[in-house]
Amino acid sequence: MSSHHIVREKQEPALLIANGEACQPDLLGQLLEWSPYVVVLDHAIHRVMDMGLKADVLLGDFDRNVDVDAIRAAQYPIEVVHTPDQNKTDLDKGIEFLIERGFPAVNIVWATGRRMDHTITNLTNIVRYRHQIKITLIDDYSVIYPLVGRYEKWFAKGTPLSLIPVGTVDGIRTEGLLYPLDNESLTLGVRSGSSNEAAADGFVRITAEAGALLIMECHD
Amino acid sequence: MSSHHIVREKQEPALLIANGEACQPDLLGQLLEWSPYVVVLDHAIHRVMDMGLKADVLLGDFDRNVDVDAIRAAQYPIEVVHTPDQNKTDLDKGIEFLIERGFPAVNIVWATGRRMDHTITNLTNIVRYRHQIKITLIDDYSVIYPLVGRYEKWFAKGTPLSLIPVGTVDGIRTEGLLYPLDNESLTLGVRSGSSNEAAADGFVRITAEAGALLIMECHD
Repeated sequence: MSSHHIVREKQEPALLIANGEACQPDLLGQLLEWSPYVVVLDHAIHRVMDMGLKADVLLGDFDRNVDVDAIRAAQYPIEVVHTPDQNKTDLDKGIEFLIERGFPAVNIVWATGRRMDHTITNLTNIVRYRHQIKITLIDDYSVIYPLVGRYEKWFAKGTPLSLIPVGTVDGIRTEGLLYPLDNESLTLGVRSGSSNEAAADGFVRITAEAGALLIMECHD
Repeated sequence: MSSHHIVREKQEPALLIANGEACQPDLLGQLLEWSPYVVVLDHAIHRVMDMGLKADVLLGDFDRNVDVDAIRAAQYPIEVVHTPDQNKTDLDKGIEFLIERGFPAVNIVWATGRRMDHTITNLTNIVRYRHQIKITLIDDYSVIYPLVGRYEKWFAKGTPLSLIPVGTVDGIRTEGLLYPLDNESLTLGVRSGSSNEAAADGFVRITAEAGALLIMECHD
């Protein structure tokens, strides 16, 4: 979907297409509207090609039935990056690739659904990169991003907003939430902040002293 | 699906139907084959009734458009349990209800998919009950259970098996895995044990010294 003849300023987020459940085509279409730099992970490339889309980069270890030559021909001038590290997930490698290339932000799709081991690993691994690149993970029901510094965003009253700690997060302070936190801790599996919501039309503000917090805007 | 005229010995697992994405009807059918005691959470009851199934218990806070009288009539003699505690999720309440009733084990379905805040909270909250009831969470791609004591199960070579720590788990020792762990730690978001597999036909054994570990049998 991107033009290879435009020198990009890398102001807009790159789009990283992982290998979980596909989102609604409309959502993908919205994210592709501004011709972002598109990175596709491993054999998700087949589903991307079936949808008639073009990728800038194909990245993976290609250990499972990926015919790289055929993809190069069909997606010319796609860049193919071979990343055989068994200690990292494909999503880790994709994010690290974009950090190396200097992108300030990335939207990630197809990273959830289907296998729950991949889903929970993808969801939680994004926190380790939160100081290096702005990450937003999007699927049909959720927009997910790590808390970095001081969070402030306007919501309509009643908008669901969940605070999910990856491990333990201490010193959480919120403003504008129906169930406010005042220098409190959340611990995954013990006490999470799922199903909170905006108390009124206005700004929600969140800070934390230590730990990695995921903010999730979800709807049914 | 269960007969209310049989006095159960509570030997078989109860079935808890939560309110996430429905699984394949075949999977639900298999779980219902032995007429388990069926507990349905809140407005999932509408989808259960649409499938022509019968529940033993409907449990929830009923804050959203649940016509309890109509359900009582259609599902007679269903037991309706009102649980308005805002500090617990519906899934927590369902598990605690089954513990109180003395069930030794529960299979949980429809607890994943759709909203990721609910999914990750459901997945990780099950560990808090692991010493009180045997929990297995099942969807179309995954069978998930907490490590309790010493784990031992036979797998065919190459079967994927993921070890997902809820927070940090220390002193993990494994036998029979392709990527073995020898008194090692895993931390969610930092180092998880996703995408391990059985090294050979035979038993996989896992122990841990401290922390809550989820074992996930997943397939594409």
